[in-house]
Amino acid sequence: MQIASVSDRCYRLPMVDTSAKLNLIDVARAAGVSLATASRALSGAYGVAATTRARVLAAAEEMSYVASPEAARLAGGATGRVAVVVPHISRWFFGTMLEALDSVLREADLDVLLYHVGGLDDRREFFERLPARRKVDAVVVVAFPVEEVERQRLALMGVQIIAAGGQNAVYPYVCIDDAAAARQVMAHLLFLGHRRIAMIEAIDPDQPTRPSGRSSGYYAALREVGIEPDPDLVVTTDWGGEQGAQAMSRLLSIAHPPTAVYAHSDEVAIGAIRTIRRAGLRVPDDISIVGIDDHPLASLIDLTTVRQPVYEQGTTAAHLVLATLRGEVDVERAVVLATELVVRRSTAPPRPDRRTD
Amino acid sequence: MQIASVSDRCYRLPMVDTSAKLNLIDVARAAGVSLATASRALSGAYGVAATTRARVLAAAEEMSYVASPEAARLAGGATGRVAVVVPHISRWFFGTMLEALDSVLREADLDVLLYHVGGLDDRREFFERLPARRKVDAVVVVAFPVEEVERQRLALMGVQIIAAGGQNAVYPYVCIDDAAAARQVMAHLLFLGHRRIAMIEAIDPDQPTRPSGRSSGYYAALREVGIEPDPDLVVTTDWGGEQGAQAMSRLLSIAHPPTAVYAHSDEVAIGAIRTIRRAGLRVPDDISIVGIDDHPLASLIDLTTVRQPVYEQGTTAAHLVLATLRGEVDVERAVVLATELVVRRSTAPPRPDRRTD
Repeated sequence: MQIASVSDRCYRLPMVDTSAKLNLIDVARAAGVSLATASRALSGAYGVAATTRARVLAAAEEMSYVASPEAARLAGGATGRVAVVVPHISRWFFGTMLEALDSVLREADLDVLLYHVGGLDDRREFFERLPARRKVDAVVVVAFPVEEVERQRLALMGVQIIAAGGQNAVYPYVCIDDAAAARQVMAHLLFLGHRRIAMIEAIDPDQPTRPSGRSSGYYAALREVGIEPDPDLVVTTDWGGEQGAQAMSRLLSIAHPPTAVYAHSDEVAIGAIRTIRRAGLRVPDDISIVGIDDHPLASLIDLTTVRQPVYEQGTTAAHLVLATLRGEVDVERAVVLATELVVRRSTAPPRPDRRTD
Repeated sequence: MQIASVSDRCYRLPMVDTSAKLNLIDVARAAGVSLATASRALSGAYGVAATTRARVLAAAEEMSYVASPEAARLAGGATGRVAVVVPHISRWFFGTMLEALDSVLREADLDVLLYHVGGLDDRREFFERLPARRKVDAVVVVAFPVEEVERQRLALMGVQIIAAGGQNAVYPYVCIDDAAAARQVMAHLLFLGHRRIAMIEAIDPDQPTRPSGRSSGYYAALREVGIEPDPDLVVTTDWGGEQGAQAMSRLLSIAHPPTAVYAHSDEVAIGAIRTIRRAGLRVPDDISIVGIDDHPLASLIDLTTVRQPVYEQGTTAAHLVLATLRGEVDVERAVVLATELVVRRSTAPPRPDRRTD
């Protein structure tokens, strides 16, 4: 398993929710510590004295912020269970992650308690009720960024938290470098001679403003070779194949359609290919297309893509869980796994009559 | 939700493992009951007096067959957890099933404890150790047939067992009628005028002899219209896209290749399409192809298929769990959900020069 250098391209935490901050301020005041210390104590960060941490947790408890997770742990000892919190189960990425996590945790005789938080409502309810409280020794959040207010809720569980498949500034995490993956896509298309390269940018509609390395890598790669990004060539949509198909329709409706398309995921790319074929055009003869993932079906439809090691992200996250449960203090805070270009038959040099350089 | 008639095309239980039977005989003898009664008592079937059941369980216990699950239940009461046992997680069918089960069980405030039993070894270990014992109120087995010896092990857990996505003679179950789905595929291809229809038959390598409705429906449909099945046109393989691609190569290597292909699943069909395209042939102009599932990517690659309601199978199974936990006695023993043909662009009448009739 090749491990790339630790990325500094992680998500920045979004604006802190004001009501939550007030709540944290109240806790800090009651415990007689600074806001920063209260926050660090609640998040289980290093560098906070045990007595201080206990005082902060007690204050949070007293304010009925949540019942004491410490008490629960002292009463019941280790539960032998780990909660895995996922926004999707049926999608390949999440299912693979879950399978990998389960495999390592099961081997260590830990049971996996599944928490599916699909929409924003599920998610709000999960963080309000904390149904996993007193039931688990650790929590793995899979591929969604945890907001500050959610982080504070999780902190009150008093258990170890690990992020898998997504960067997170406050928990140990495992991820890929999305910007580097985007650059691998772009290097390939630029080397083939493409200049009008479109991007089908996929975003989570619940997190529309979150910056993505998969987008920044596209812009950086173009600017490096002196191409001014053309806003007509960037279509933003939700993750998903049907969305990719619609986005591709839009790209075929502009005056100078692209000779190559970079899609943020393989599913999005597969949808785009359907549109290209329905328009009577051929892949890659008329239009090249590249995704990111190496979804199991990508090889079946001969899609060029950038492979991300999903199973390894899951097993690595599980090993981080085991290390923290063993009380190891030098746990890696950020593991960034390498991605690689997989060339198949959906990319080729642009048709000579469509070259624009 | 449309519910088809209860199918009589369920799996027959395979030969009973002799060593397990001996064991059951020992239990029956010690309890002073017939073999049939012992079996019914252990499986939690209706019509066994509580005292008789207790005697059988006690006998099983005494023989160190397994520690008493009854004792565990009496001591701990309801656990508030349901075990879901799945052979795969990352595959769409199983992930969707899990998502559906979780959604209904979570709503009822039950936690889902995940048990992934991938290969035969995992499976053997699961049934030997019964790691879910004393931890759950019910067990859902997803889409794998439970052997007699495994059934006896599960019975010793003393909890409700439901089968989802696969028929099973001994537990309440939810499934589709595989033979009916195969007939929907065949009716469509026969109506289009195809006569040389191949079948890519997918089987579980761990269960090679298990008869499949997806195969019997093919043979029945052909014979009904007076076509003698041609063994050259049937290729048996494992489930999976790459396997479908290889099977299709074999079908292109025979003297008279088919004009249409029926694949046991969409993934298998998608693999077969890659082979057809790589051979320079077109779908459906040269060869028609149909799958079963309506995998989310099927619509993206314009695949004609028979849709099975996977999510509904999961929610229905979860409702069976809730009903049995409420102690309802008129729980439906078999719910068979309807499938439907979805015509897309992978099927068309055979080319006139290739018609064989």
